[in-house]
Formats: sequence, C-alpha cells, structure tokens
Amino acid sequence: MTFIQKLKNIQRKTNSLLCIGLDTDSSKIPSSLRKSKNPQLEFNKRIIEATYDLVCAYKLNLAFYESSNGYETIHQTLEFITKSIVTIADGKRGDIGNTAEQYAKSIFIDWKFDAATVNPYMGKDSVAPFIKDEKHCAFLLALTSNPGSKDFQYLDVKGQPLYEHVAAKAMRWNTKKNIGLVVGATHPLELKRIRLMVPDIPLLIPGIGAQQGDLEKTIRYGCNKGGGLVIINISRGIIYASSGKDFAKRAREEAIKIKDQINYFRKEYFG
Amino acid sequence: MTFIQKLKNIQRKTNSLLCIGLDTDSSKIPSSLRKSKNPQLEFNKRIIEATYDLVCAYKLNLAFYESSNGYETIHQTLEFITKSIVTIADGKRGDIGNTAEQYAKSIFIDWKFDAATVNPYMGKDSVAPFIKDEKHCAFLLALTSNPGSKDFQYLDVKGQPLYEHVAAKAMRWNTKKNIGLVVGATHPLELKRIRLMVPDIPLLIPGIGAQQGDLEKTIRYGCNKGGGLVIINISRGIIYASSGKDFAKRAREEAIKIKDQINYFRKEYFG
Repeated sequence: MTFIQKLKNIQRKTNSLLCIGLDTDSSKIPSSLRKSKNPQLEFNKRIIEATYDLVCAYKLNLAFYESSNGYETIHQTLEFITKSIVTIADGKRGDIGNTAEQYAKSIFIDWKFDAATVNPYMGKDSVAPFIKDEKHCAFLLALTSNPGSKDFQYLDVKGQPLYEHVAAKAMRWNTKKNIGLVVGATHPLELKRIRLMVPDIPLLIPGIGAQQGDLEKTIRYGCNKGGGLVIINISRGIIYASSGKDFAKRAREEAIKIKDQINYFRKEYFG
Repeated sequence: MTFIQKLKNIQRKTNSLLCIGLDTDSSKIPSSLRKSKNPQLEFNKRIIEATYDLVCAYKLNLAFYESSNGYETIHQTLEFITKSIVTIADGKRGDIGNTAEQYAKSIFIDWKFDAATVNPYMGKDSVAPFIKDEKHCAFLLALTSNPGSKDFQYLDVKGQPLYEHVAAKAMRWNTKKNIGLVVGATHPLELKRIRLMVPDIPLLIPGIGAQQGDLEKTIRYGCNKGGGLVIINISRGIIYASSGKDFAKRAREEAIKIKDQINYFRKEYFG
C-alpha cells in the first residue's frame, strides 16, 4: 500500500487529521512513572493507549530519544502502535548520499516508520534515499513554524521566497507521489499559497498549541479540495496537558477537543 | 579554553589540519574484528590508536551510530580520544528552539563533543543552543560537497548565492567567536570567496578523498592568512584504506600521506 493510501485510510477510519507528537522529554515525565523500568516507553504506551482511536498519526521527535536505551524505546514504541496508524520519524535529517542512505535505513528498515521529516538544504541526493519506496514518505521542510524561519526561508529568489522554490522542487522530484511538505501553522497566508502550488501532496503542519498557530486558517487553507491530506501535529499541548497521574486521561481530553475543533472547521469549509 | 584556542593548540602540536571521519559502517568493519563484543567501538579504538598523533580532530558521523548500542559507542569512542584533540559531532541537526536544545544537550553535555555540524535552514533559534558556550563550536552548512548542493545553495538572492547569505548571517551571529562553516572541497573557487568574507572563522572541509575534491586549491584558498583555521576531513579514504587485518596500519599510512600533502601545500602558499 502506498503512503498516501495508508494516510487516507486512517484519516477516514478515525475521522481525524490529528497527529500526536511524542516529544517525550524524560525530565517532564510524571513522577508516578519514574520508577518504571523505562519511564519514557511507559509514558508513550500510556499516551498511545489513551488516544489511538483519535489520531491519524504519531510523530516521534528523534531528539528526545538520544539516550542509552533510546534506540530500543523508539523500536518498542512503534511496535505498540496499531499498524494502520501512520508513524513519522521527526529528525529533519539531511546529508550526502551514503549518509542519507544510512539515516533512511534506520528510519524505514530498522524502526519501520512510514515517513520521515527531511531538511532540503543539501538537495536532491540528500532526499533520494527517503523516497525510494512509495510506501514511505519524506516530508521536506518548506516553511517552518519557528521565528528563525524568517532568516533564510523568506529570502527572495527571482520574485519568490525560497520556501516556494523548495515546494516547486518537491513537486518535480515527486515521481513516486511520496513527498510531502512541512509548513508551520504560524504562517496561514503562506500556507494558502503553498497549497495552491501543491494541490495533491500531504502537508505536515506543526505550530498549533505551544507555538500558537491559527487552527481555523490552517484547516481552511491547508486542506486539499476534499478537506484532507493534512496532518496537524500537536506535541506538548497534548502529552503534557497534565503533569499528574491523570496525564493520559487529560491527554485524551485534549486530543478529543482538538480533533473536534479540526472537524468543526473541516465541516465549515469543506462540507 | 575557547574552541578556537583548542583548535589552534592542537593544530600546532600535531602540525596537522587533518580530521579523520569515523563514519564507521558496521558492514564494512574488517572480519577480524567481527567477533569482538562491540566491533564498531573496537574499530574506532584501533583507528584512533593508529592516528592520534597525526590529526587535529576526529569527526563522528552520527548516522552510523543509530543502533542499540550506538549511544554508548559514541560515548566510549570519545572517552578514548586524547583530551587535546578536537571532536566533532556530524549530525547536521537543525530544529525549533526546544528540540535544538535537546540535540545540543546530547552532543555537548552527554557525549562532550567540542563541536557540531548544524543545518542553517531553520534560522537563528535553531542554531542558538549550539553557540551558547564559547568552548563549543557550531559548523553551519554553507556550501556542501555533494551534487545536490546545486539545488538550493546556489540560488541567486539579491546578486549573491544563498550560501553566501548563510556565511554573512553566520558572521553576524558570531558574537562569541564560536561559529564555523562547512564548505566542500569540491567547490574551490567558491571557497576562495567565502574565505574572503570570513577571514577569521574555522572552516570544516569535507569532500577530499572519496568525493575527489581538490586538495591544493582547498589549502590555498581555504586557509586563513596564517595557513590555518581549516579542518580537512577525510573519512572513507582513510578508515577503509584496507579491509584486511592491516586496516589500522594502512589508515595510518594514508593519514601520514595526506597530512604531508596538506603541509606541502601550506608551505608552498603560506611559507
């Protein structure tokens, strides 16, 4: 099954565009879990158990898994996720050919993620190993949600901002229909223009929640004509909704709230 | 001691600008080491033992350490490197503030590297956590050595290629004198212009060896006025010089050869 098909299936099944980001910071794990053998894994399992029927995807931020058992924690977290749900390795990798191959191998072969975020700065051969197989997707960074997105991504190149050149190249490289783009919810009007450029590719959208992006405009401008092909990621806003024993229950409540908000706007704009 | 000072000290002590890249691919480790408990670590130790008096730095390519004992292998490899030698984590990280913090923590606090390679695409807040302390250095990707460097890095922005804008921003952010740039040896004329823009910052130069960059021009155009502040990285050309039992001896011979070539050109152009 292609990545796009898997994404469409799960979005239909759970009626959800929500992705939960497992940016599981060991220092923020509730004290009730600290005594378990692998608190980070235990935390992930509890969050997944409480939310799996509400999401289309889980995204693991690889920065938070660089520890002595991080490699295994990623592996075991993925094993715990229902096979129909999309999994995204968020490492923003990007390197020369033979090194990019190695990163892609870890992500797709060893850990068995469905998708990866990839930094496009090093160009086509740094992206190629991530788009070999149509069942895997590479989400290229186009316009990121952070303040530093202003430094280079908006630079004017022949009348167009750099991030639109990334979107244009992505379209050209997308012969297997398995490239997506990362576009921050903090830039709704830019998102609108990008969606016009790439009507049929999936967009991974961070920046709602802790980064205060605009959900209504994100749905309105980010979705394709069918009101889909968008993955709205929330990390801290959901997984740290409570720091107490009720963290999983509170995460579920937040996830329901956001899923419902997303669907409210989908209905409003796409019927 | 600042990073720059440490780099200058070791380059003087070993009279070498050579950095050996420990891109230690488990599948390429000589069969004589395969039976040891941690073949990758054993390989690194043997290479380091055979070359430590010939280098200014070792660079670990983090892609090759994503395995169940990878975290520990990095840790133990660094412990084995003489404290006066510069260590570089080559992961080309780049992410929003709180995630970049996490990557910087792994690299500088947990593993205790001196420097890291950083992808600049996400801008200042993605770089900031790597340049907090003057004893650590962030090498920003400017012009990389691979074919894909043509895709975005050369795009014309107000009459200047994008990579020169990266160099210009790097200079502006360099208030603690701990930013460097990555410039591939496959682009000698561009290197010349970059060195004119940044006379006093360290350049990390990959692309000699397997990627066939030009060593003479790299030295001539890459060094600062004193014939230094350049780190020439070679990975595969040295560590895989032989796949037999003599791999460490052959790595040493290659390292001597390249170190001598570098110094021959330094003498020719800088006296």
